[in-house]
Amino acid sequence: MIVILRSDATEANVQHIIERGAKIGLKANVSRGIEKTVIGFIGPEDALRSIPLEVFPGVEQVLQVLAPYKLVSREFNKQGTIIKLPYGVTVGGKHIAVMAGPCSVESYEGMLSIAKKAKALGANILRGGAFKPRTSPYDFQGLGEEGLKILQAVGKEVGIPTISEVMDTRQVELVAKYVDILQIGARNIQNFSLLKEVGACKKPVMLKRGMATFIKEWLMSAEYLLAHGNFEVMLCERGIRTFETATRNTLDINAVPVAKKLSHLPVVVDPSHGTGSWEYVAAGARAGIAAGCDALMIEIHDNPEEALSDGAQSLMPDKFEELMLSCKRVAQAVDRDL
Amino acid sequence: MIVILRSDATEANVQHIIERGAKIGLKANVSRGIEKTVIGFIGPEDALRSIPLEVFPGVEQVLQVLAPYKLVSREFNKQGTIIKLPYGVTVGGKHIAVMAGPCSVESYEGMLSIAKKAKALGANILRGGAFKPRTSPYDFQGLGEEGLKILQAVGKEVGIPTISEVMDTRQVELVAKYVDILQIGARNIQNFSLLKEVGACKKPVMLKRGMATFIKEWLMSAEYLLAHGNFEVMLCERGIRTFETATRNTLDINAVPVAKKLSHLPVVVDPSHGTGSWEYVAAGARAGIAAGCDALMIEIHDNPEEALSDGAQSLMPDKFEELMLSCKRVAQAVDRDL
Amino acid sequence: MIVILRSDATEANVQHIIERGAKIGLKANVSRGIEKTVIGFIGPEDALRSIPLEVFPGVEQVLQVLAPYKLVSREFNKQGTIIKLPYGVTVGGKHIAVMAGPCSVESYEGMLSIAKKAKALGANILRGGAFKPRTSPYDFQGLGEEGLKILQAVGKEVGIPTISEVMDTRQVELVAKYVDILQIGARNIQNFSLLKEVGACKKPVMLKRGMATFIKEWLMSAEYLLAHGNFEVMLCERGIRTFETATRNTLDINAVPVAKKLSHLPVVVDPSHGTGSWEYVAAGARAGIAAGCDALMIEIHDNPEEALSDGAQSLMPDKFEELMLSCKRVAQAVDRDL
Amino acid sequence: MIVILRSDATEANVQHIIERGAKIGLKANVSRGIEKTVIGFIGPEDALRSIPLEVFPGVEQVLQVLAPYKLVSREFNKQGTIIKLPYGVTVGGKHIAVMAGPCSVESYEGMLSIAKKAKALGANILRGGAFKPRTSPYDFQGLGEEGLKILQAVGKEVGIPTISEVMDTRQVELVAKYVDILQIGARNIQNFSLLKEVGACKKPVMLKRGMATFIKEWLMSAEYLLAHGNFEVMLCERGIRTFETATRNTLDINAVPVAKKLSHLPVVVDPSHGTGSWEYVAAGARAGIAAGCDALMIEIHDNPEEALSDGAQSLMPDKFEELMLSCKRVAQAVDRDL
Repeated sequence: MIVILRSDATEANVQHIIERGAKIGLKANVSRGIEKTVIGFIGPEDALRSIPLEVFPGVEQVLQVLAPYKLVSREFNKQGTIIKLPYGVTVGGKHIAVMAGPCSVESYEGMLSIAKKAKALGANILRGGAFKPRTSPYDFQGLGEEGLKILQAVGKEVGIPTISEVMDTRQVELVAKYVDILQIGARNIQNFSLLKEVGACKKPVMLKRGMATFIKEWLMSAEYLLAHGNFEVMLCERGIRTFETATRNTLDINAVPVAKKLSHLPVVVDPSHGTGSWEYVAAGARAGIAAGCDALMIEIHDNPEEALSDGAQSLMPDKFEELMLSCKRVAQAVDRDL
Repeated sequence: MIVILRSDATEANVQHIIERGAKIGLKANVSRGIEKTVIGFIGPEDALRSIPLEVFPGVEQVLQVLAPYKLVSREFNKQGTIIKLPYGVTVGGKHIAVMAGPCSVESYEGMLSIAKKAKALGANILRGGAFKPRTSPYDFQGLGEEGLKILQAVGKEVGIPTISEVMDTRQVELVAKYVDILQIGARNIQNFSLLKEVGACKKPVMLKRGMATFIKEWLMSAEYLLAHGNFEVMLCERGIRTFETATRNTLDINAVPVAKKLSHLPVVVDPSHGTGSWEYVAAGARAGIAAGCDALMIEIHDNPEEALSDGAQSLMPDKFEELMLSCKRVAQAVDRDL
Repeated sequence: MIVILRSDATEANVQHIIERGAKIGLKANVSRGIEKTVIGFIGPEDALRSIPLEVFPGVEQVLQVLAPYKLVSREFNKQGTIIKLPYGVTVGGKHIAVMAGPCSVESYEGMLSIAKKAKALGANILRGGAFKPRTSPYDFQGLGEEGLKILQAVGKEVGIPTISEVMDTRQVELVAKYVDILQIGARNIQNFSLLKEVGACKKPVMLKRGMATFIKEWLMSAEYLLAHGNFEVMLCERGIRTFETATRNTLDINAVPVAKKLSHLPVVVDPSHGTGSWEYVAAGARAGIAAGCDALMIEIHDNPEEALSDGAQSLMPDKFEELMLSCKRVAQAVDRDL
Repeated sequence: MIVILRSDATEANVQHIIERGAKIGLKANVSRGIEKTVIGFIGPEDALRSIPLEVFPGVEQVLQVLAPYKLVSREFNKQGTIIKLPYGVTVGGKHIAVMAGPCSVESYEGMLSIAKKAKALGANILRGGAFKPRTSPYDFQGLGEEGLKILQAVGKEVGIPTISEVMDTRQVELVAKYVDILQIGARNIQNFSLLKEVGACKKPVMLKRGMATFIKEWLMSAEYLLAHGNFEVMLCERGIRTFETATRNTLDINAVPVAKKLSHLPVVVDPSHGTGSWEYVAAGARAGIAAGCDALMIEIHDNPEEALSDGAQSLMPDKFEELMLSCKRVAQAVDRDL
């Protein structure tokens, strides 16, 4: 922790800060420049972080030196986490996983049809929403438990692990009973009650970055999961909200190498939400792989015109096939396979 | 709903779209320009909103004509909502309410001391967090039910209504038992499960705008509350996340007149979070009143150096007194009182 | 300057950095923590700023301690700059100046008519664009020198100082010949050639913040002007670009107290561009005054329906009158007058 | 152009708008819904765009149907522009061009050394800044004409076309005399005087997107160049400014397929500025190619520790070699070569 003092700070101000650090066992190193004095504290920064040094008299700025996350940091697990799923599927190794399926589970027949096609084209995880976070209370809110049952049945029928979103602390147990991966959506990235509950659950989790979440905060939300006991966590970049309106979101491609550098957790890219338009999904998917992601999440639908949600960004099977073919080639170009 | 076609759209594309609208009872009005054809649908837009017209062949863009919220819209209640609280306090009328108190409830004595000062200086609602949304799992998470008990006891002792945050669907009943206003925090603005649960509760609610929430989405989240039966809702602008880093958030002062125009709900301004620094809180508070807000929410603390959270943006009682004096004058200048 | 090393930095890395600083005469203060080593350099930071310490082996992060601007900083002129204009008008003291007029100069008659009304209603500086920065090459580009002549003639006729935008290094002399204040627009905030040229000119300047300009960069652009000899500079906050689309820009009201704290230059608020809609201009103007600005810039027009540019955010004289009346009251409430 | 009326608009309001359109020869198509009336204008939208319909009584919103750019649009040139440069180099076809070199031209020897290495490793355009846009007036501002002479001499010596930035209308002729491609920097994206001057010049141009420039505005700035006679224009995505601070900018990878869809101009990706850190440049470069860009611009330096600008994002030749090898493979995976 580094504390930069105002140019009019007094010696008493300096002593007051040094003493506050000393109370919790930190040693201070004081640099007296011509214009400013700087105090560096040596020792465990966590204790100091809870003290609002910004309000101490004479303080201009407080800078953290250590990353506030520990369990998710690359230092904690240099070789990187690999998550094992049913049917021999893994996320995090050389093989790039592909999660595909409709935005919402709509019916058994529809789900079965799209799941078979997805698997045939190379997808190895099946997505489908049963509890849907919808901006409007008047929009379709998902089939709930009925949707989870359909997803589970189709997953077993086709032989593919499944992923579905959990939105409520009270649903965690229920969703965990039916699916192989719990998804925490962008809107719940800082729903800390949910993070704690899912952290206490023994199921792999995919944590989507929020629309305005710093990468650092995304990692801190993942830290909640690990700190509560769940180490099978994937991070998912799904686009951030910026000033640009030509696309629904701005896929933050930089976040892929940054998250891979800072953390050992696998990184998923979701170009469907990241672009918001089926026309740009394949470009976003290829870019994600080229930038180093470990998995893709793609929305597909047999008949987007009749989709109950997110039709505009869903790919038909023929376009998904093209995407998979081009992504396989890009994966090989970066020494991965798919 | 207006559908703009691509310049290469065919007559079959046009008919296909018209027929889809006709299926749900909408009449189409077709304008054939030289470069583009435009289809306008007349009738209840809600039904159409669930159809992903963007993916229909030939479609370039789809534009909504009607606002997607109804119950929160100004048209629904032209004169504006006034919320009645215990001890004769109201939010929404000529009098500007002031919510003040520490970020977190820390102890009975501390709370009582600050509550007395706050009331003496003109605050008429007491704030204090018992369940705290903290970025880090290692930070102080609030006193929980113990904090709520303290807040309630102090509120009764001092004679002032109280507000505290609810973060989890499972806590709604508990929090509602102890406090007079439930707060939904910025991070839960699109926690739709929580919105439904609080909507079903008979307690006034303050809904904070999220860091990257469009004003339209903020109103849609409020619509969840009203649609589930709770009409005693206040909106709270608390700063948005932008590129600027000189302040913790960017107080979106424009949001005040925009929300007042679009909705009948009272609008609260929180300059503590909106600026993130005690030095700028008073300027933000005055600006909020000058722009037309109905209430302020201010973090204060007897000893910010020892605050367990948000010390950097908390005002000491002497600074809060100055703020109240200058805010009273600005309130009078815009024909309000405080 | 503070240099934070990676946890795997070697002693040789540390020595290499210390030596680089020593070469330019800086003394290093090294703090060796358990996880990280931190090097603080004491002495003139400017010299060090030009060395890309980020690429030195072992470096994780480099932090500046001193503000990079000097002449514009509050320390340089504690009491604040007051700019004197013809007809006894000042910007920067107790009296809040009001610049009003049409977006573009359109004709002598139109300009004279609106100028008389503006002055009668209390405006004391006349604005009007002759060179217009337009997004489209097909839009009206301004009357050029003819517009400047009209502005000058009307200013003399009515007895009011004038302001107009300069967009090109080759126009500086020309614009300076006709007007009393040169305006540098938001799109030219980092047109450094223009800043140098205007800095060398002996005319007051108003420097608009760009749409995505950090406050720090805004001050650095002002520093260009002062460093080239022109100290009569006003800063103008005119809204920044954020994710929100309900308003054309987001008026960054926080920027007012921040700029006043960091710099001695007067701060102008432009709520016409800051909101983009005539309906919200008055709220923005009042908020600007309540937050501490020194002047307002307002677009007005006798007949916005026929305005050649920015009609949507222009006020008719009757609305401008209302704005002035309410702003006068808010000004008094913060011990200013207008 | 579509005009949506407020629900309280009168029939007189409707007629007033229809008549205004009729004056400039536009036919109106009126849809009267239950809640709102919508007027669609058929005919040349340009004329209407200059009328501020937003201020007409009864108007709620005005929507453009046609894109405001024409010459840059994909419709104007379906097969795409290919720009021919000296030494047989092209930008825009199957071959992906690579522009490499130091941020600033620093000396003849340094430039020659890095140019030889760049060419040997596969770069086919040499970059180097002579006029530098620097945030601080106290930073190195470039060698000016001396730098251009060095760049030209080295380009001839090595046999490689050159690119350098022009910042001032008065420099256009000078820069055009020495280099093969004029660069317009991000900070000058809406320096319309400069756009006009460069538009009138017969040299290929690379137009960098600004930090907060909508893709639509970027294309409009390019339209200035084409409308003034210069059709040899490349667009360059170099990262936008968002809330995220983990990287210097956010590389907007979506902008690549969007710009390729909307326009026939070649698209360059600059991952050096797009990420701001040498560690992430290669990931950004591969992502750019995977997303469909036509060229890369990369900052390289023999000794970044001594670079006079942008050292932190410059690659050493060994890292550039790795980047080129991996980019070649990704290029092949998307049926391009490099």
